[in-house]
Amino acid sequence: MRLMPEVLAAKRDGLELSSEDFQYLCNNIEDIPREQLGAFLMACQINGLSSKETSNLTRAMLNAGEKMQRQPGRVDKHSTGGVGDKMSIVLAPALRAAGATVPMLAGRGLAHTGGTIDKLESIPGFNTGLSLDEMKENPCFISRQTNDIAPADRILYSIRDITATVPQIGLITASIISKKAAEGLEKLVLDVKCGNAAFMQTKQDAVVLAKSMVTTGNSLGMKVTAQVTEMDNPIGEMFGNSHEIVECINCLKGDGPEDTMELIYAQADALGYDLHGVIADGSALIEFRAMCIRQGVSEDVIDKIIENPWSQLPRAATSTEITAKSSGYVAGIHALTIGEVLCKLGAGRTGENPDIDHGVGAELLAKIGEKIVIGQPWIRFDTTSVMTTEMVDSVQESLLISGEEIQTMSRILEVIQ
Amino acid sequence: MRLMPEVLAAKRDGLELSSEDFQYLCNNIEDIPREQLGAFLMACQINGLSSKETSNLTRAMLNAGEKMQRQPGRVDKHSTGGVGDKMSIVLAPALRAAGATVPMLAGRGLAHTGGTIDKLESIPGFNTGLSLDEMKENPCFISRQTNDIAPADRILYSIRDITATVPQIGLITASIISKKAAEGLEKLVLDVKCGNAAFMQTKQDAVVLAKSMVTTGNSLGMKVTAQVTEMDNPIGEMFGNSHEIVECINCLKGDGPEDTMELIYAQADALGYDLHGVIADGSALIEFRAMCIRQGVSEDVIDKIIENPWSQLPRAATSTEITAKSSGYVAGIHALTIGEVLCKLGAGRTGENPDIDHGVGAELLAKIGEKIVIGQPWIRFDTTSVMTTEMVDSVQESLLISGEEIQTMSRILEVIQ
Repeated sequence: MRLMPEVLAAKRDGLELSSEDFQYLCNNIEDIPREQLGAFLMACQINGLSSKETSNLTRAMLNAGEKMQRQPGRVDKHSTGGVGDKMSIVLAPALRAAGATVPMLAGRGLAHTGGTIDKLESIPGFNTGLSLDEMKENPCFISRQTNDIAPADRILYSIRDITATVPQIGLITASIISKKAAEGLEKLVLDVKCGNAAFMQTKQDAVVLAKSMVTTGNSLGMKVTAQVTEMDNPIGEMFGNSHEIVECINCLKGDGPEDTMELIYAQADALGYDLHGVIADGSALIEFRAMCIRQGVSEDVIDKIIENPWSQLPRAATSTEITAKSSGYVAGIHALTIGEVLCKLGAGRTGENPDIDHGVGAELLAKIGEKIVIGQPWIRFDTTSVMTTEMVDSVQESLLISGEEIQTMSRILEVIQ
Repeated sequence: MRLMPEVLAAKRDGLELSSEDFQYLCNNIEDIPREQLGAFLMACQINGLSSKETSNLTRAMLNAGEKMQRQPGRVDKHSTGGVGDKMSIVLAPALRAAGATVPMLAGRGLAHTGGTIDKLESIPGFNTGLSLDEMKENPCFISRQTNDIAPADRILYSIRDITATVPQIGLITASIISKKAAEGLEKLVLDVKCGNAAFMQTKQDAVVLAKSMVTTGNSLGMKVTAQVTEMDNPIGEMFGNSHEIVECINCLKGDGPEDTMELIYAQADALGYDLHGVIADGSALIEFRAMCIRQGVSEDVIDKIIENPWSQLPRAATSTEITAKSSGYVAGIHALTIGEVLCKLGAGRTGENPDIDHGVGAELLAKIGEKIVIGQPWIRFDTTSVMTTEMVDSVQESLLISGEEIQTMSRILEVIQ
């Protein structure tokens, strides 16, 4: 067994690390000096990790923590994050209604991208911090990662964040796949987004990450499918935290936006489930209600939410409608701009506001492909403060208007399995 | 001003860091998380430091600490370390006798290489820990670095040691030159060793390091000369701590080995001083006596040492003579083997023994070029324990015997200024 200085020297020199090296790292991570972890991550970042190394690191991260038991029918999805990316909240109960077990560990928002956990915390009483024991017996939940699961990932991630070592394919893969493997899944679907509001800007980069995650997940015994999807335009019509819960309930009622439903159906399909029936017959909505109750929401509250979401969910009081600067067809909406403005307004975290405001959000009033005339409102922001001129201007410029009719395209660009 | 994550991202991407980046690092080093320092060093190690970056890092390290005032006639030398490398202890007082001021900060032994500070601590009463104030008024001293001088170097060095980032030319340069610049030197001579017992194994690597240090030192206003010297064979005839002090006194009495005196004279010459006179007339020895007294040695002890060094210096009681396995001419002695055996016997530090035994050492009984016959003792080890068969064998194999006469060569391979 090699100690860290030797491991670091090998990675520094571009040599391949062994399974034992990664096991040593992950099993002793609490005792390894932080300077060695920083050096390790930077060496991985610059010199890269081979497919074999990525798989070995992922397995070592997985095995250093607690695991749920692998069983047929356990399925989950992971998204690399975007704007309006709310599909998980619909998918989990709908998959349950279709017969799957869904142990979904999810995350908070990062920069301009929303987080499933933050969105669920809009619902009064929803407990996103289940214990491992509470997870083990649960047929369908969405919860934060616990400290028992892949503890090495938690430490490495916190260090990557401050050492400029976030954008390394092998490290990203290990972080995501180790946690998903700990869920004991039979099948996993990955939504790897690309575009201006995605972690991966280009399709090429997204495909590289998708392939790495599929290969690594398969090597750990899961059946993994990755869908590379477009993230230049925000997904659906509602953005924010409460706002996206409202849209999820619409989806579960069979009234979701086309682009959102396309992704939900495709994700379920990759896992072997057809959700059209469980959405149409209301059983997906019933499973959503059951999941909320299992996670601490009172029956009274969830029933009122299902009847009229805005009766229970927070919504910021100041509304600002942004108008079109010219006439034509809605050709595109720059998702990064929408996400950044919402983040600044309090829907996401910034250096200045570590707490988010669940009631801040936006609703699209015009969809891609629709005709629009100059001066027509096309998006409404619900805020706690007046939007600055700068914000209004940038949102106005985020709307792309075409003189010609627009063909709406599928968001799914490539499937890798 | 950029904070560390941005600085790390730049270095990760192979961009050149600015003077301000290095100043920020060195001025805030106590508060920067260790994982960021580890990542910084690894990024420098893998992506390298340009000559400009090296100079800026060195200046930032220098300026973050205390400095002695620059004055004409202040000179010093630095050696990258070897086996039998004792020249500093002769050079400092001899330069003083020739009119120079010598503020010599020196180090301890590292692995198989001896350390000037360890050697001086063989002398009863010798204080190697002068304060900065004691240094400032002192015309000639040899002391350990204080915490006031280049404090960033102390922290970075301790991290380099455990992160596999020791062998980076720019980092080595900054570490050495920042401390030497803090001495307020007019001129500096560098002994950059290459060979089996040196930090740099090849002449090519040694020349690269030498050039980096000369360029950087000159950029900080010192006149720097580097001598690249051979370190395949041990220097002189005495190796160890007490043993090398004995040989230094021989040198100061005009009775030093030819190879050792060649280096001492050449180093002084590079600084603009001719030491032949001060060695011949005894004034160098008088200055050595004065230096010892200034650093805490009693007059009685130093006078007895000068008369008969072994009357005062520790010497391990068990002697083992190693014999030649064949007859011929002494063609070479593998310095690394001698250094490693001495280190294991207690003359240097290992993981197991952090304390050194000043009385452990060795004396050559046959010199390079001399005729030797099978069974003739050619080196004697003074030890506290019996040498293992393995040690005796490796020492025996370290002697290279040639059937033909050997021409002794200069140790100086190249001079860079």
